[in-house]
Amino acid sequence: MPKSIEKIAVLTSGGDSPGMNAAVRAVVRTCAFHNVECYGVYQGYEGLIEGDFKKMDARSVKGIINKGGTILKSARSKEFRTKEGRQKAYDNLSEEGIDGLVVIGGDGSFTGALIFNQEFGFPVMGIPGTIDNDIFGTSHTLGFDTALNTVVDAIDKIRDTASSHNRLFFIEVMGRDVGHIALNVGIAGGAEEILIPEEDLGLDRLVESLNKSRKSGKSSSIVVVAEGDKIGKNIFELKDYVDENMEGYDVRVSVLGHMQRGGAPSCFDRVLASRMGVKAVEAMLNGQSNYMVGLLDNKMELTPLDNAIKGKTKINLELLRVSDIMST
Amino acid sequence: MPKSIEKIAVLTSGGDSPGMNAAVRAVVRTCAFHNVECYGVYQGYEGLIEGDFKKMDARSVKGIINKGGTILKSARSKEFRTKEGRQKAYDNLSEEGIDGLVVIGGDGSFTGALIFNQEFGFPVMGIPGTIDNDIFGTSHTLGFDTALNTVVDAIDKIRDTASSHNRLFFIEVMGRDVGHIALNVGIAGGAEEILIPEEDLGLDRLVESLNKSRKSGKSSSIVVVAEGDKIGKNIFELKDYVDENMEGYDVRVSVLGHMQRGGAPSCFDRVLASRMGVKAVEAMLNGQSNYMVGLLDNKMELTPLDNAIKGKTKINLELLRVSDIMST
Amino acid sequence: MPKSIEKIAVLTSGGDSPGMNAAVRAVVRTCAFHNVECYGVYQGYEGLIEGDFKKMDARSVKGIINKGGTILKSARSKEFRTKEGRQKAYDNLSEEGIDGLVVIGGDGSFTGALIFNQEFGFPVMGIPGTIDNDIFGTSHTLGFDTALNTVVDAIDKIRDTASSHNRLFFIEVMGRDVGHIALNVGIAGGAEEILIPEEDLGLDRLVESLNKSRKSGKSSSIVVVAEGDKIGKNIFELKDYVDENMEGYDVRVSVLGHMQRGGAPSCFDRVLASRMGVKAVEAMLNGQSNYMVGLLDNKMELTPLDNAIKGKTKINLELLRVSDIMST
Amino acid sequence: MPKSIEKIAVLTSGGDSPGMNAAVRAVVRTCAFHNVECYGVYQGYEGLIEGDFKKMDARSVKGIINKGGTILKSARSKEFRTKEGRQKAYDNLSEEGIDGLVVIGGDGSFTGALIFNQEFGFPVMGIPGTIDNDIFGTSHTLGFDTALNTVVDAIDKIRDTASSHNRLFFIEVMGRDVGHIALNVGIAGGAEEILIPEEDLGLDRLVESLNKSRKSGKSSSIVVVAEGDKIGKNIFELKDYVDENMEGYDVRVSVLGHMQRGGAPSCFDRVLASRMGVKAVEAMLNGQSNYMVGLLDNKMELTPLDNAIKGKTKINLELLRVSDIMST
Repeated sequence: MPKSIEKIAVLTSGGDSPGMNAAVRAVVRTCAFHNVECYGVYQGYEGLIEGDFKKMDARSVKGIINKGGTILKSARSKEFRTKEGRQKAYDNLSEEGIDGLVVIGGDGSFTGALIFNQEFGFPVMGIPGTIDNDIFGTSHTLGFDTALNTVVDAIDKIRDTASSHNRLFFIEVMGRDVGHIALNVGIAGGAEEILIPEEDLGLDRLVESLNKSRKSGKSSSIVVVAEGDKIGKNIFELKDYVDENMEGYDVRVSVLGHMQRGGAPSCFDRVLASRMGVKAVEAMLNGQSNYMVGLLDNKMELTPLDNAIKGKTKINLELLRVSDIMST
Repeated sequence: MPKSIEKIAVLTSGGDSPGMNAAVRAVVRTCAFHNVECYGVYQGYEGLIEGDFKKMDARSVKGIINKGGTILKSARSKEFRTKEGRQKAYDNLSEEGIDGLVVIGGDGSFTGALIFNQEFGFPVMGIPGTIDNDIFGTSHTLGFDTALNTVVDAIDKIRDTASSHNRLFFIEVMGRDVGHIALNVGIAGGAEEILIPEEDLGLDRLVESLNKSRKSGKSSSIVVVAEGDKIGKNIFELKDYVDENMEGYDVRVSVLGHMQRGGAPSCFDRVLASRMGVKAVEAMLNGQSNYMVGLLDNKMELTPLDNAIKGKTKINLELLRVSDIMST
Repeated sequence: MPKSIEKIAVLTSGGDSPGMNAAVRAVVRTCAFHNVECYGVYQGYEGLIEGDFKKMDARSVKGIINKGGTILKSARSKEFRTKEGRQKAYDNLSEEGIDGLVVIGGDGSFTGALIFNQEFGFPVMGIPGTIDNDIFGTSHTLGFDTALNTVVDAIDKIRDTASSHNRLFFIEVMGRDVGHIALNVGIAGGAEEILIPEEDLGLDRLVESLNKSRKSGKSSSIVVVAEGDKIGKNIFELKDYVDENMEGYDVRVSVLGHMQRGGAPSCFDRVLASRMGVKAVEAMLNGQSNYMVGLLDNKMELTPLDNAIKGKTKINLELLRVSDIMST
Repeated sequence: MPKSIEKIAVLTSGGDSPGMNAAVRAVVRTCAFHNVECYGVYQGYEGLIEGDFKKMDARSVKGIINKGGTILKSARSKEFRTKEGRQKAYDNLSEEGIDGLVVIGGDGSFTGALIFNQEFGFPVMGIPGTIDNDIFGTSHTLGFDTALNTVVDAIDKIRDTASSHNRLFFIEVMGRDVGHIALNVGIAGGAEEILIPEEDLGLDRLVESLNKSRKSGKSSSIVVVAEGDKIGKNIFELKDYVDENMEGYDVRVSVLGHMQRGGAPSCFDRVLASRMGVKAVEAMLNGQSNYMVGLLDNKMELTPLDNAIKGKTKINLELLRVSDIMST
């Protein structure tokens, strides 16, 4: 029977995403609800190594559910990749009497947590926080839904000016090496084409498709490009190729950049964060470790961290087809 | 073997919701993709009776994916509730050679479609469009996600002023006789209490809970009230009761009203609308009738209209618990 | 020659408005820039009486420029209306060595400041913070521009549903006993009629105008009603009257309520708040007192508090005419 | 005495900006109000040359007040720069009996209008539509206020992620060769530095300032860079320079791009557009020509087109000072 947990620490790690604060709040309040002490760790794993954490009660997370970013800050820690770094982290936690760790972050952060558990038997639990939705074991990562709305709002604005000038816009969106963001915002933004790493359309077919779209009477076009797509070496080279190989459009590029990571989380992400925080803490109090909480079929489920890291998320092929039909 | 479908009509009926235009667009473009003619019907069933419909091609639904409301308009039709009215509708459709009907609306609209099918054997397909999320056979109705974000944004604004003045706000949100909107926005808006028709907290326990919350150090409070809740006869009487039975708060009421129904649809609702439009048309072309398309476990599924109408949607009890824990 | 100022206190008072935090930040940072100590007072005048203030440095106002509400909180103080209360306030300020007070609020707050100055010769400076724009000596009060955008966004949403159903909406907006908000949002929201306290249209002419509008081919209508308007005893009675006296519309009411006071301030309000904070502190350091800073012809100007309180703001008659022409 | 005007044409030209549609609506409805026929010209001056215009009545501009872009489209016309092109335009207008032209655009568009008037004595009136606010004779151009809010919203989002990671962001904003946008959004976004073409800070002082800011305890920084600024050859070279010459920050670049031009216009821009449309038409009906309407001291004023084109707008030096003080 596992030792009962009495003090839990929570940290945010890797790229930040909207909803991380809501998840921190949920972890803190669930601890308070169960009369377990909770500590916030600053700067991700770096804060573990430097002992930079402080006790948080239910009131200390007031007013953060709707804030983007993370009040605990995030950072990449080289030192935590070393055995010595992790030993320091373990010593700091032990000294404070902390006996459980909730990590909010992406697969890199989970890998750190898993190694830490394997070395010290320290109970860890993961909450998937990234806008990229590239983690196995959950239909939605924290921040994905918010980022989709942020990007679609930007595309709507670009569409206003594109259609006023008969322009073709290439819009680069985030997503690392997966196309989840691109595919969803492409459909929602009414894009004529969506370029994602999972499917290589090819330059010739792109130009052919845009020409066909133009002939069908469309006076402006949006092409959404996932940052991980390789059809051009980069989006500016892609623009140049199209500029040279098709007529009638004034071609422009917009790289949406880091604004995609910020902003007040959507209702969906706030509710998801709250559910995940509750589940992560209660699973840990229940003696479980080395799991990631996730949303599957609208229910909270646990996936072994190992699987969450190694598993592959897949593009929904139905969405690709919907996109094709919609750009009729 | 069913007669193949050659002309499809689409209408919107009942209360409008964000995403209806995106669904109309999807129906029209899917028809175009399959070389099937498509007709838009104005004013819901009223337009069927009056023969108020016009042919729509792929370009005619340009620029509407991000518009709230419905370009086809919606109306309640008393005449369609009579046999004579439905006969006229059938005659008008037949005259135009239309042999399939997609109805975007709520359960009342589906009931009309089902009766119409039973009387004339006319193929019908339903797309659930309502912000209330009160339809069986789909985890999300069209517009629900958008309404959640609209309401949460309003609650965030009210929270600004509530916490500047140590006030208690009762905020009434839509949802007819179910508490889906209230429950989700209550969690996302950081409400201290959520009053829904599915669970009768009772006035005494409400006051008790608010007093406890006040003593725990909260200087302001939000109580989200579903319009269908019966704890007070209405929200103003509820306010009066609390005003008389607790001290220390300045109590206010805000009824969010019809702004909850409008606005540009969220990314989620646009993608959902596109998927539903494709599925509805393709199912119909495939010879199916009397179904509603829905989202279940993130996949497009068909539910017999009969079940969609009679089935009950249930509150997610996990969310109630999350709400309780979050207001710690 | 005035004694030089060494410690300045700042408070927010009366109804909160977006931009108050930005103004607090500006006061604090301008003090820091000039090496003057700055104290934040909590709960408005109540905090002066209770000695509830704390020293604020440049970093302490980090991250608040975009927050609605006021971190200093606001409250009405009955005690400050008494000589004894003001004496306590003076004693507390003196004890701390504070020798200047910046008051962010409306005319009621300025009246308090003026009396306080008259009794104790204590230097005071006012910054007009209210969404109502009802203060003489400035073309824009802090929060007015933000509230306009909030309301117009809500009207846009209501318009979506109004035009989907051929409805007539009466929308009540804030503004106390002046029509500035109503007049601007009415024009921007494309309202058919705008009812403001400054001009009594009369019920008969309202119905006549709505009938005319309906006959001109408009299928839905928005009437914006200032909360101070007296054409009906209240907006629900107004609705009832119109319901009884005109045909063809489904008439609805929406009272926008307190969400109008919250939200992140607009760029305009943030810049205005920054300019006002700088001006208020520097005028005080310059030996001036009993003034309100204001925006006149896009420049920072000082108006004697006395005039700011007694002066009347007027509706721009040109806007009334523009509104009439636009509803052609 | 001038010949009375009986038919007015309106066009949008140059880069589009939010509020252009609201201005088109205002021109059309003011014509209707005065029983003057109104024609919309497509694609700017190109449409004049090709005779691409159509009659518009009051109802034809329904539902566009809140739409970004321009329903009349915009384009650059090489042919209108030739005498032959302008002759064709004149012939087309004459043939239709149009005897007045309202041009919504920037200084390039006004230059075309002025030459056209000089050659043919054709009455013209200008409405300043551009987000850059670079036109003499108005305190605000149409779209400027909306663009400010769009940019500030993006900066707020970037700030979320910047402060979560202790990053320094260079954010490029539009504005051609003036710094109005940069200066306002820099203050409103809480930027540590604002680089504008009107003032050359110099690379060394920039690095010095950022180092000072870092030492004062700021963990993240935003530098807003006007696109016309020349301190670096471009923003990426600027980033590289700072990367090499200062420590402790992770430096990133975000180029906001064309989303700055789109979106629903703010309340301010809708009201401004309505006022300008009324004034432009009524001035023309009053026999005036060759003027631009503008907002000066909150009143509608006429400035000779000649002056509007040649005049220089100036940066408000007070704002530069406010920015310096705010980044204390």
